[in-house]
Amino acid sequence: MAILRLTPKDRAAVLVCLPEWIYEPARDAIARDFSFPDFITAFSFMTQIAMIAEKMDHHPEWSNVYNHVSIRLTTHEAKGLSTRDIALARAINALLPS
Amino acid sequence: MAILRLTPKDRAAVLVCLPEWIYEPARDAIARDFSFPDFITAFSFMTQIAMIAEKMDHHPEWSNVYNHVSIRLTTHEAKGLSTRDIALARAINALLPS
Amino acid sequence: MAILRLTPKDRAAVLVCLPEWIYEPARDAIARDFSFPDFITAFSFMTQIAMIAEKMDHHPEWSNVYNHVSIRLTTHEAKGLSTRDIALARAINALLPS
Amino acid sequence: MAILRLTPKDRAAVLVCLPEWIYEPARDAIARDFSFPDFITAFSFMTQIAMIAEKMDHHPEWSNVYNHVSIRLTTHEAKGLSTRDIALARAINALLPS
Repeated sequence: MAILRLTPKDRAAVLVCLPEWIYEPARDAIARDFSFPDFITAFSFMTQIAMIAEKMDHHPEWSNVYNHVSIRLTTHEAKGLSTRDIALARAINALLPS
Repeated sequence: MAILRLTPKDRAAVLVCLPEWIYEPARDAIARDFSFPDFITAFSFMTQIAMIAEKMDHHPEWSNVYNHVSIRLTTHEAKGLSTRDIALARAINALLPS
Repeated sequence: MAILRLTPKDRAAVLVCLPEWIYEPARDAIARDFSFPDFITAFSFMTQIAMIAEKMDHHPEWSNVYNHVSIRLTTHEAKGLSTRDIALARAINALLPS
Repeated sequence: MAILRLTPKDRAAVLVCLPEWIYEPARDAIARDFSFPDFITAFSFMTQIAMIAEKMDHHPEWSNVYNHVSIRLTTHEAKGLSTRDIALARAINALLPS
């Protein structure tokens, strides 16, 4: 079954619950930056996400410089934001101490 | 410089500050077991330790079954417990929420 | 659906194709030891397996000492060897240079 | 001791031996892109580099999208390319099958 891009209405509804993620209209993507005390904690966070992403079969676009991690989520197959990105964003949020 | 095995007196003094680690006389080693909510958090903990161990050039004997991690520390070159094991045990403790 | 333990006949048939894995009757498990040039390559191998295991939702019992990795596979739910262990053993074999 | 930026002459000499790395004058950095069969092998490569980088106490600027990894090396403290970047580039090259 094809993965469908979220409609503007559905997107607006789900993003209300993800206030830390910035919507990027140009890519129809969401993005969030993270800072950690050091490289080890930053890369450990990436390792957790790598395992989750592989399990979901949905992977982030991400970059790292020392203690900073930047993550962008969009679904290439859907040419924009899909429910997969929302699920991955929620799983990433759940890794952080609340 | 050779890495020296801790004397019984020095060992007793430092182990007072590592009450969660069990001393194993047969191996002159210390050991600790850890439990996590799931495999992903357990393996992420191992990844942090792997980076610390490689940086210290001192590596654990360890095993993992799903959410459990067991770590034993001893120094092969010193044929027993050395200051390197104490340093690694402290670094491992520092990874845990206090 | 319950995961079934392999019958002795089925087990014998599949293990012919996994000659590097040792069958352990006491646990109804298979085990294999690996050696690498150093800790970094050993732990990187473990990281690949961690991602595969999490994706399969089937995890190894394993231990590591510096450049050595020992892996035992069995299925707790089936109380012995199942097709899940065979699939994971094949995936682990596929990581090695042939 | 301060880490010094390579002189143009020294830089030219060392980059001869790193032909796969592209020199970026704007950042005084070197960069290289890598492709792998899948996400697991790409992230495993990153894990190896993470351990090496932490050991060297010199970290890359890098990004990943599925099976692609892009790495840029420069030394913030030196405001440009230093011997640390050359050492890390060589260590990264050594991870690849030759």
